[in-house]
Amino acid sequence: MTYVIDNLQYANWSPRIFRQMREGGVDAVHVTIAYHESFREMVLNLEAWNRWFEAHPDLIFKGTCAEDVARARETGRTAIFFGFQNPSPIEDDIGLIEICHQLGVRFMQLTYNNQSLLATGCYEDDDTGLTRFGRQAVAEMNRVGLVVDMSHSADRSTLEAIEASTRPIAITHANPSWWHPARRNKSDEVLSALTARGGMLGFSLYPHHLKDGSACTLDSFCAMVVEACERYGARHLGIGTDLCQDQPDSIVEWMRVGRWSKEIDYGEGSADAPGFPPMPDWFTDNRDFGNIREGMSRAGLSDADVDGIMGDNWHRFYAESFGPAKHGEAGHQARRAAP
Amino acid sequence: MTYVIDNLQYANWSPRIFRQMREGGVDAVHVTIAYHESFREMVLNLEAWNRWFEAHPDLIFKGTCAEDVARARETGRTAIFFGFQNPSPIEDDIGLIEICHQLGVRFMQLTYNNQSLLATGCYEDDDTGLTRFGRQAVAEMNRVGLVVDMSHSADRSTLEAIEASTRPIAITHANPSWWHPARRNKSDEVLSALTARGGMLGFSLYPHHLKDGSACTLDSFCAMVVEACERYGARHLGIGTDLCQDQPDSIVEWMRVGRWSKEIDYGEGSADAPGFPPMPDWFTDNRDFGNIREGMSRAGLSDADVDGIMGDNWHRFYAESFGPAKHGEAGHQARRAAP
Repeated sequence: MTYVIDNLQYANWSPRIFRQMREGGVDAVHVTIAYHESFREMVLNLEAWNRWFEAHPDLIFKGTCAEDVARARETGRTAIFFGFQNPSPIEDDIGLIEICHQLGVRFMQLTYNNQSLLATGCYEDDDTGLTRFGRQAVAEMNRVGLVVDMSHSADRSTLEAIEASTRPIAITHANPSWWHPARRNKSDEVLSALTARGGMLGFSLYPHHLKDGSACTLDSFCAMVVEACERYGARHLGIGTDLCQDQPDSIVEWMRVGRWSKEIDYGEGSADAPGFPPMPDWFTDNRDFGNIREGMSRAGLSDADVDGIMGDNWHRFYAESFGPAKHGEAGHQARRAAP
Repeated sequence: MTYVIDNLQYANWSPRIFRQMREGGVDAVHVTIAYHESFREMVLNLEAWNRWFEAHPDLIFKGTCAEDVARARETGRTAIFFGFQNPSPIEDDIGLIEICHQLGVRFMQLTYNNQSLLATGCYEDDDTGLTRFGRQAVAEMNRVGLVVDMSHSADRSTLEAIEASTRPIAITHANPSWWHPARRNKSDEVLSALTARGGMLGFSLYPHHLKDGSACTLDSFCAMVVEACERYGARHLGIGTDLCQDQPDSIVEWMRVGRWSKEIDYGEGSADAPGFPPMPDWFTDNRDFGNIREGMSRAGLSDADVDGIMGDNWHRFYAESFGPAKHGEAGHQARRAAP
């Protein structure tokens, strides 16, 4: 079976976008439901999603396990999986990790751009690695089946999370810095360590993560994918577009500044270009996954590798990651996978 | 199969009590997890239960569906089902009903003793029936599979809930007022309407609900059960002991007064007897369900009726009640059951 899974979107959700997911044959999408929200505020976002599920059962449903991806394919719908881009919804309470998992959350970044209670974000000057709470939180996330995501975290924190986690972790949306040395992209050291332990990288289509930004060509992107396959093994790679379709620029300001500063912080943007950058013309919405598939084939990847990157690798990762830890899954060595 | 289900307890939980559940052969218990808590406070109670489940997987686990009762029996454990005795955790937000159901809550009283946002409690002077929010909440509870419980509600509110609900409702813990005319016990009119629509009554062992209080005899209790079978049909009857084992008297004060009054309210108690009353000597903890079974047999009930009241009726009700409404389940008439 070959699935199409986008492992990161944060769109301004609408029936139009859900229909585009169907037009694009997208079986599953991991959607962001919190940046800076408290637990209580995040619950309001869950409620909004419950309303979408109730209003559009013909297009979408809530996904919680790998089998839901198959169910989506069989019933012609898209399974929506939940994730946090920041650990703010668990506040200072390790018990909220299991509560969030029970509510369907399947990915949680240990940091957004800043220092969190758990680890250090990639915009801080100093990276002190996992905190005391961070180590406890990783163990609890391993236990219940909530995936550690280090997309916005700094290098030391990321390497320590890879090491501390007894289950493979994810970088859901970023690219290699050897292709485009953006602050949010990841070093070869990080990506090697991630994938050597069975972790997954989702390639981002967000222009700040692309060589030549919005002007990045599909050929350039796919040549990068080919090289990543050679370095890390195709089975550890997938897609996480970071698609922020139809969002007003006020949202990127919320993502970057939240409530932590009264001054503006441009993050990956700048005073000249503070808003969302335009997407590359070969990927503007959920109907364009065929372009990526064709581009990877044209670049010389095997059908099996293309299928894996388009969704089968995330599907396998979902199957291994979303349930409670099996007895004996605490050991590191057993899970070290060949790249 | 014959199960043992206690459909209402609010004990001061401990491994000792969980072991007593096993000694008593109790397959499932519906436990109260909120009286006056806000949503956020109730989540802390869920966290405490998650800790119990993690610490004692050999004794208890979280139950969410009827199949969990069978699983409890097969694995020699007790399935714990969650409920609220007051709608305070949904605050003023209908969306929290589905969120609470997703967190495993399966019963919710529309009121405790006072007027709530949904209906009128049995200690108010005037009963104005279901509120505007109350009607919407009942419909939403029907949709997601959260059972309406009217144990502490006033008569008009209860009758209106029975009528408004498209699925059978419950009075989880009370007795007929024709046996003992306590304010918390229920009129023949209410019990007839409840059971005529397929609803369930759980017999209470709380002394204020018993004829002669703590001195109530098992024979008197079982004679009442026999008469209730004759009036309402045995299949609509079960047990809901209201066991508050090992609780300090500060807890009954919290149950009655919450944060709504600075003055003491004795509820069913009095200034002379403000605390928890002593349980009848034939039912003091989970090991005593055999006494009730024997008493009912001795009183002349058939084995099938005894099995039903001990747990099989609640098991059937769980199977019909905890899942989402089936298509077409909105109609009243189809669900009218013979008593």
